[in-house]
This record gives sequence, structure tokens and C-alpha cells, in this order.
Amino acid sequence: MSDIHDFGTVAIVGVGLLGGSIGKALLKSNPTHRIIGVGRSVERLNVARELGAVSEISTDLSEIAGNCDVIILCTPVGQIIRDLPSVLSVAGPNCTVTDVGSIKSAICSAAADDPRFVGGHPMAGSEQTGVVAARPDLFGSATWALTPGESTDPFHFQKVKILAQQLGAETIILTPERHDEAVALTSHLPHAMATSLMRLAYQASKRAPEVQTLTAGSFADATRVAASSPELWTDIFEFNREALIGVLTAYRAEIDGFLDDLANAERESIKERFASGSDAKRSWSKQA
Amino acid sequence: MSDIHDFGTVAIVGVGLLGGSIGKALLKSNPTHRIIGVGRSVERLNVARELGAVSEISTDLSEIAGNCDVIILCTPVGQIIRDLPSVLSVAGPNCTVTDVGSIKSAICSAAADDPRFVGGHPMAGSEQTGVVAARPDLFGSATWALTPGESTDPFHFQKVKILAQQLGAETIILTPERHDEAVALTSHLPHAMATSLMRLAYQASKRAPEVQTLTAGSFADATRVAASSPELWTDIFEFNREALIGVLTAYRAEIDGFLDDLANAERESIKERFASGSDAKRSWSKQA
Repeated sequence: MSDIHDFGTVAIVGVGLLGGSIGKALLKSNPTHRIIGVGRSVERLNVARELGAVSEISTDLSEIAGNCDVIILCTPVGQIIRDLPSVLSVAGPNCTVTDVGSIKSAICSAAADDPRFVGGHPMAGSEQTGVVAARPDLFGSATWALTPGESTDPFHFQKVKILAQQLGAETIILTPERHDEAVALTSHLPHAMATSLMRLAYQASKRAPEVQTLTAGSFADATRVAASSPELWTDIFEFNREALIGVLTAYRAEIDGFLDDLANAERESIKERFASGSDAKRSWSKQA
Repeated sequence: MSDIHDFGTVAIVGVGLLGGSIGKALLKSNPTHRIIGVGRSVERLNVARELGAVSEISTDLSEIAGNCDVIILCTPVGQIIRDLPSVLSVAGPNCTVTDVGSIKSAICSAAADDPRFVGGHPMAGSEQTGVVAARPDLFGSATWALTPGESTDPFHFQKVKILAQQLGAETIILTPERHDEAVALTSHLPHAMATSLMRLAYQASKRAPEVQTLTAGSFADATRVAASSPELWTDIFEFNREALIGVLTAYRAEIDGFLDDLANAERESIKERFASGSDAKRSWSKQA
């Protein structure tokens, strides 16, 4: 069994922004690391190797899994869920298996209480995608959520925790359910907001072209993540459906409140909305 | 009458972020400019002078208005509306009067077809406020909307247009009504969105403290402008009520669409939302 601080041979399945950034960071800290990029396209894997995100490549995890100390699943969440049972069946008895998916309940369920699996979610993304955007400092001061189950082996849990910390992240431990409820509000809802505004603005610009130029920083910020991958986010919304219905319902009530206040010319109530929002933002612990 | 390219003596009423940035830019281009900061607090006006935002100060516009070639109103929109009739009554017959308010219909109405008034709105703001945040390059590549009325004198219109361009902005000419409808969508709605999300997150963090740390760039961007001045934004919402009811209603329909799709597990419809939003964002003309 490898020492807990030596990550040994690491397979990164799906070498995009997150997988590529993990590979780059590991190779930067130790250029002799064996980091095997796993994917379907040899062409794309070769690009990842040329960019220094992985040191070796493979198109068949089952061929190399037996020699891996850590397998990190970095594919879209739907694929992680589909692949996890077969990944665990080919991984060795002491191999640590983790993932970086944005939802955790459905993924941890797919791991079926396997003691080698530790659910993970680094809160560092970008509307940019692909290994070209990968950078070794992507996780600096980011939060990396870990959602071990009751059956997760402490050895594997510690290994993933140290890995996340070595990449510069701050770890937070919580249940998959609490994770999914929190990110539904802090990450998934903002994507629905940005997408909805962008669709409206696009429609409006057809009849009023000035909408395209009458914008400033608030519009750019409010729509930035609308450029994200539709496939990725469709998966996330599908697998965090319950929590998203909850936060979208609560959010709609806030929008309804604004509408009611405007309809009734409730100046003081509108001011109270802005004042409480402003106070909350200014006192919020994690600023970025 | 002063030459159209010589702005002469300029009074800036309300020396905050926008007024201070205009003053700094004018003094940077010509240090001998007479830029008079006008406000109620001598203390705050002295700070503006020390920061190089104005060259002189006054607490009584009526005393100096007769000597001014340009008066720029940079106070919150409610105050601009209240002050405009008296400002126009003390301004000289050849004095250009303009403003930087975020709404134009109510302000232009308050000017009562005075030929010396030109409504303006530089689309450059910040959640930061006050003269301390002022900088001469704030308007670089920003859009500066101008909303002249039928009775606006072309001399005054040209003067304000050249002023905006000299500050680095690109001007766009449109009616007050079209301006207000466009910014309701591109600027005012994003503030309601940010405020609503921030209020929800604050409430959620009371029962689930992890909400404060499980955030990334999408949350920071989506809530940035929630820190804006409540007074300023209450005014804007009050004076752009009709247009805001329209865009908030359309936006709520988008949110309802997401909710319906989630409730009915309409994966393809959700994907179409993300895909159309992503396409629109990537093809949008003005990126920031």
C-alpha cells in the first residue's frame, strides 16, 4: 500500500478544465508523478499531454486501473454516474476513487457504499471549458467539498483530503444531501439566472438593437456563466432536480415580491429589499 | 458664447463616483479647467478637491450658476428630478445642463422641454460609491446614452456629445422611453436578481452555515451589484416602474419555465434553455 502522502500512479478520467488543472498541479509539484489521462479521443489526450496536464494517456481504463493508486473522475456528472460501478469493479482493492462532480447525492448513490470511494467537488470552475483553459493554480483558495459516506475507509478519505489541500484548496466535509442543497442555491441557481437573463436580452435585442450596447458591468457579470457548457449543466439540473425546484421556488417568490412592491408602489419595501441585500453582501464571509 | 470644444466653467453637482470621475478626467485633460464641485457638505467637497476631482467648491449652486458654461447633475435620480426646475431657473441663457441619471423619462419630463437640457446616462458604474472610487478612465469604452428632446438646442446637444466622447465614451442617441426600457432589462433587472439571490443566500446561511463557504465565481458575480447603494436603486426602481414591471414579468416567466421543466423532468427543454442562452452569450456584441 502506498504511503498516504505519495499519490502514486494517478488516473484522471476526462482531462478537461478540472482534470487538466489537477494534472498540471500534480506534475508541477512532482514532475516524476505518473499521471495517466484517460479518455476516448487519442487526439484530445495527446493535446493534454503536450500541454503538460498528464504524463501518459490511455483510452481504456480497465487496462490500467489495476496499477493505479488514485482514480479521479472528471467527466460530466451524468457520465460519472453511469461509469462509477464499472470503474470500481476494475480498480484495485487499495485504489482510492474520487470525483469532481457538481452534485453528490446521485454520484455517491452510484458508488453503492464502496469503502474506496470519496465524493468530491472543487468549487472552482469557469465558463471556459477544455484542457486549454486548465491551470495548476485553479484551486488556490477554492473550497473543495468532500462527502464521505459511513462506509468510506478513513485511509481513502484522508488521501483525497490531502490531495485537495495540496492543490491549494480548503476542504469542507458534509453529507451529499447538504452539499446538493447548498450548491443548488449558490451555484446552480446562478446558472439558471444568467441563462434566463441572456435569453431575454437576446429576444429583446431583435426588436430593440440598442439593448446590445446599453450594457455595463452589471449585465456582463449577471450573464457571464450563461456561456457554460449546455451538456454539463443539463446533467447537473437533472441530477439535482429536487433541490433546484426548492431554490427556484424560493427565488421566484423574491422576484414576485419585487413585482408586488412595484405594482403597489411600495417604496419602503423596495428600499428594505435593497438594504437587506446590500448588508448581506457586505458582511458575506467569502468574497471573490 | 463659449466655443463648442471649450467646456469653460463646469459645475458638477454631486461629486461621487460618476461626478468625481468626470471632474478628474476633465482636469487631467486640462489642469486649468474651472471645475466647481457643488454639494451640501463642505467637508466632503474638500475631500473631492484634495483628490483632484474638482478645482473649486460651492454649497450654493444659485450663487455660481450664472458663471457656469456647463452644469452636470450627478446626484441620485430622485434628487435630479426634484432639483432640475430650480437648476434651470438659475442657469444662464447659454448654459448647457445635463445629467448622468440611470433613468431618463422622468428626468427629461422634469426639464419641461428646456432647450438647454440634454439627458445623459454613462453606462459606467460600480457597486463602489463615493469620490474615493472615482477615476478618470471610468468611461473608457463605456456607452454614454444621450436622450435629447425635440426642443433641445443642437448647440447644447453637440456640447454634451463631445464632452462624453472626450471622456472616452461611445455615445448612443435614443428617446428617453427606449432608453428606460433597455436599461430596465440590461441594468435594473440584474440589480433585482443580485439582491434577490443575496437575500436568499443570507437567509439560507442561518440554518446551513456551509452556504457561506460553498460558493465560487458564479455566486460572486451573480451577487456583486447587491452591494450597491439602496437609496440610489430605490429611486431608480421608483422612477422606472412601468418598464421594470414588464421585464420582471418576462423574467419570472423564464424562471417559471425552468421550474416547469424540472417538475416535468423535461431534459430536452432544459438543454434547449442552456443551449440558447450559451449561443446568445457567445455571440453577444458587447463583451465585458
